[in-house]
Amino acid sequence: MSYKIGFIGLGSLGTPIAMNLADSNHSLFVYNRTASKAAPLAAKGAIVCESIASLAMQCNVIFTIVSDDAALKNICEGENGLLNNMQKESVHVSMSTILPQTAADIALLHQQYEQHYFAAPVFGRPEAALSRKLNFAVSGEEKIKNKIEPLLKNAGAIGVWNFGENISAANTIKLCGNFLIASALEAIGESINLANKSGIDAKQMWDMFSQTLFNTPLYHNYSNIILQQKFEPAAFTAKLGLKDINLVLQLASSVNQSMALASLLQKNMQQLVTDGKENIDWSAVSTARQH
Amino acid sequence: MSYKIGFIGLGSLGTPIAMNLADSNHSLFVYNRTASKAAPLAAKGAIVCESIASLAMQCNVIFTIVSDDAALKNICEGENGLLNNMQKESVHVSMSTILPQTAADIALLHQQYEQHYFAAPVFGRPEAALSRKLNFAVSGEEKIKNKIEPLLKNAGAIGVWNFGENISAANTIKLCGNFLIASALEAIGESINLANKSGIDAKQMWDMFSQTLFNTPLYHNYSNIILQQKFEPAAFTAKLGLKDINLVLQLASSVNQSMALASLLQKNMQQLVTDGKENIDWSAVSTARQH
Repeated sequence: MSYKIGFIGLGSLGTPIAMNLADSNHSLFVYNRTASKAAPLAAKGAIVCESIASLAMQCNVIFTIVSDDAALKNICEGENGLLNNMQKESVHVSMSTILPQTAADIALLHQQYEQHYFAAPVFGRPEAALSRKLNFAVSGEEKIKNKIEPLLKNAGAIGVWNFGENISAANTIKLCGNFLIASALEAIGESINLANKSGIDAKQMWDMFSQTLFNTPLYHNYSNIILQQKFEPAAFTAKLGLKDINLVLQLASSVNQSMALASLLQKNMQQLVTDGKENIDWSAVSTARQH
Repeated sequence: MSYKIGFIGLGSLGTPIAMNLADSNHSLFVYNRTASKAAPLAAKGAIVCESIASLAMQCNVIFTIVSDDAALKNICEGENGLLNNMQKESVHVSMSTILPQTAADIALLHQQYEQHYFAAPVFGRPEAALSRKLNFAVSGEEKIKNKIEPLLKNAGAIGVWNFGENISAANTIKLCGNFLIASALEAIGESINLANKSGIDAKQMWDMFSQTLFNTPLYHNYSNIILQQKFEPAAFTAKLGLKDINLVLQLASSVNQSMALASLLQKNMQQLVTDGKENIDWSAVSTARQH
């Protein structure tokens, strides 16, 4: 079956995902606040819409990937938002990293409009999107999952991990995952600082670790970035990292859970942002200057 | 060439390493403070020595693996210690996790006795020793390394990682590695706590993470232990974990490096020990009750 797919949010990760969808046998409609970002998609045959409302009216599956809860709510609400303009029975596939509670709230609104919300937050940096190695944690109605899963493959999924019908589940998984990545970044950074100060070749050390205990692309890539202090251009900014850690602690607080390590990461990520480094890569977390 | 190999320290990791050496074509001499622990080695043909001095006199390569700096110094020093009894030109291969400075101090003493010290701290839990998948970080004289490397293969090495002639290097690597593992334990634990409190299936979450972002035996094994709260029997105790984190911070302090995450780990590991849980597995770090 061929869908009319809408795509909103042509950021650094959204763009390669939309490019993948443009290569599928579905028609693609795109909208972005900064219209110029749609040019590479238009060159691939995507239809560029002038408003969210216009995109919403023409599509039956709409993907969104935006920077935070407020941006997503903004797209959904109001006279010209998704809720007021999406067709009945159409599906909103939400890939943003947001609070689980926000996902639940928006899902309920879609239900009131006889539309569907499907949670599909995504793991992977832009280069993983390009090489179709993204992993999606998903949650929502079973019948919607069956419909959307093939489209996620079109979008660049190597894995789709189903967490059931509780709509908040996938976003909880995503926040846990980003917390784990940020923890690894802090640990890698502190290990490199200690080795450097001790007169040890930190690169040689990570040659060992990334082939033994920590033999994963995540540790391999990030240890290289941190060893070279190559924090620009950022694939994922400190500002977004801080936003995610704040969400982790907001979720933790809502279920009365203390998280000592997440609190430490928040402090360091906040320090980076306070020092004006909000646009460098979040892997700089361990370099935050302590005051 | 066939060596007379001595082995001191039949703990949970030392024993399977000694068993591997017993299977080699070298003769094996063992000593342990608790003599009964030598029985399985004797059954494999190892010669059980009644004192460190007696072992030292008979061997040309002596492996030690003990719990801390004090225990190692104790083996080396005094009238009946290694220094006073080892043959000239014989080699002390030290696998314990100790301060880099302690390694440098003992190496200098051996040099004064015309003996050699070779640093070979080991990465791997007892099951890794049994399946010959240990990794050794090594440092010391090049000519000694060439002699010892094949024996480390006999001992169960899958990898021998050479960090050059600076004798302290390998122990710095080992401390950085244990810090990284402890950091992962804290992060895994906090993620599981958050998922549980949020009503999410933490096991299903780690099924995803340990096949994607964190696809390594370390994350796979430890997430299982923490999910099941199966902290006994311990493969590596909280008490030893605390000792290692203390060494990390001692090293950091000696080079004027602050390590926020290592300090957090120290606090939690200390809390476990204070709560009388010093003999459970160190992966319980994130369960430390905060007061």
